[in-house]
Amino acid sequence: MRNIKLTISYDGSGYHGWQTQPNAKTIQETMEKALAKMTGTEVNLIASGRTDAGVHAIGQVANFLTFTDIPATGFQKGLNSLLPTDIAVLFAEEVHADFHARKWAKEKEYLYRLVINGERLPLLHNRAWVLRQRPDIHEMRLCAKHLEGRHDFTSFMASGSSIKTAIRTVTLIEVEEGTNLDYASLGLKEIRVKVRANGFLRYMVRNMVGFLVEAGLGKRSADDVPIVLEKRDRNAAGPCAPAAGLYLAKVFY
Amino acid sequence: MRNIKLTISYDGSGYHGWQTQPNAKTIQETMEKALAKMTGTEVNLIASGRTDAGVHAIGQVANFLTFTDIPATGFQKGLNSLLPTDIAVLFAEEVHADFHARKWAKEKEYLYRLVINGERLPLLHNRAWVLRQRPDIHEMRLCAKHLEGRHDFTSFMASGSSIKTAIRTVTLIEVEEGTNLDYASLGLKEIRVKVRANGFLRYMVRNMVGFLVEAGLGKRSADDVPIVLEKRDRNAAGPCAPAAGLYLAKVFY
Repeated sequence: MRNIKLTISYDGSGYHGWQTQPNAKTIQETMEKALAKMTGTEVNLIASGRTDAGVHAIGQVANFLTFTDIPATGFQKGLNSLLPTDIAVLFAEEVHADFHARKWAKEKEYLYRLVINGERLPLLHNRAWVLRQRPDIHEMRLCAKHLEGRHDFTSFMASGSSIKTAIRTVTLIEVEEGTNLDYASLGLKEIRVKVRANGFLRYMVRNMVGFLVEAGLGKRSADDVPIVLEKRDRNAAGPCAPAAGLYLAKVFY
Repeated sequence: MRNIKLTISYDGSGYHGWQTQPNAKTIQETMEKALAKMTGTEVNLIASGRTDAGVHAIGQVANFLTFTDIPATGFQKGLNSLLPTDIAVLFAEEVHADFHARKWAKEKEYLYRLVINGERLPLLHNRAWVLRQRPDIHEMRLCAKHLEGRHDFTSFMASGSSIKTAIRTVTLIEVEEGTNLDYASLGLKEIRVKVRANGFLRYMVRNMVGFLVEAGLGKRSADDVPIVLEKRDRNAAGPCAPAAGLYLAKVFY
């Protein structure tokens, strides 16, 4: 029995997220079908975590067990020829039999992309949140500092989630402003929010970004963060940022 | 009679280029249909120049004449609500009756994006040329320097083009290397080639980029440029770079 680890990138626009579900196209099902074609058997692909509908991946990690003797690079080449253009295997390697993409993940990093423009931008359609007003980046950073650390993130979790504990450790939230390279010739700016944590709750990054933007627009202040966290109530935090701007960037083992 | 100037961005992936043609979806036809819906009459939209199938625009410029009293901003809002997500009007203004988007254009600037990776990259699908080998950027720059200036660019023009003269003045070719922001967390690099000229022949930028890459990979040298130009023969230059990496960035009036 061999254990193969894959690093996968996808454009999530056309999918109902990672996890297989009835009557919807998902990344997991698309990949498992390709693996079944290659191996002749059913394959169970374990990801570092689910991504929601419309969310992208720069470096999602998944693993599967196989009795075949296809080398890791063979899986990479085979999958990339079978998979559609919006999914690709960037790296493949054989790993220890015990490796488990979800259980072994120590930290994950997400990226959220925001641009400020009065009109929608075709080259960023499904790829970034287009804001009409410019949020204050210093206020966003102050807020981010208050969200870092070990907290109960119930207020930033999708309501209705059933989970043992909402306590997570956010090791880093970085708010950077730079040039958007797609529209650089028009001078478009881009805000990039990087969030690293030992685990994420459903919609956690999108709910945090929604809050940061409200703070940046003066509707909230950084001082509200401890109060909002304390309330452990989804209604206490800001709106949920759209899925299109979110990317699973990296998984750390 | 009023003259309206539009600055347009589009993702060209789903189109057979700018210019209306039978049995194919084009940007011009899509926009003219939306304008006809708004004005109740046929509208002739004049662009700064055609873009080919699969080529994108950051800032294409076009103009049209109208008898309506719809203000420029009204056209912008109306068009953006009628147009599909892969086309948008970024700016609209009323201009002098004589303004002509093609005839008045003094210079145009194109951008070509290249990334180096062993596998295809879903987030850059249709958006950049993915090269497997890294070209030498210094050799590309040397080549670029030799292509700048006033030359007969017949060797870099699509064969079969019928045109009075192939003499154009290339005012700038810039070859920059930087981080690719879509895959920054994986350390992906991107080469961006900017070409500015007083006019472009069909496939001219793509043929020049194809040549620059061959030079960067050691198959050609910068010293070949004057010889290739001198030959005035399409077969003398390099291969044509794919449409997906090309963006019409800016039009100067």
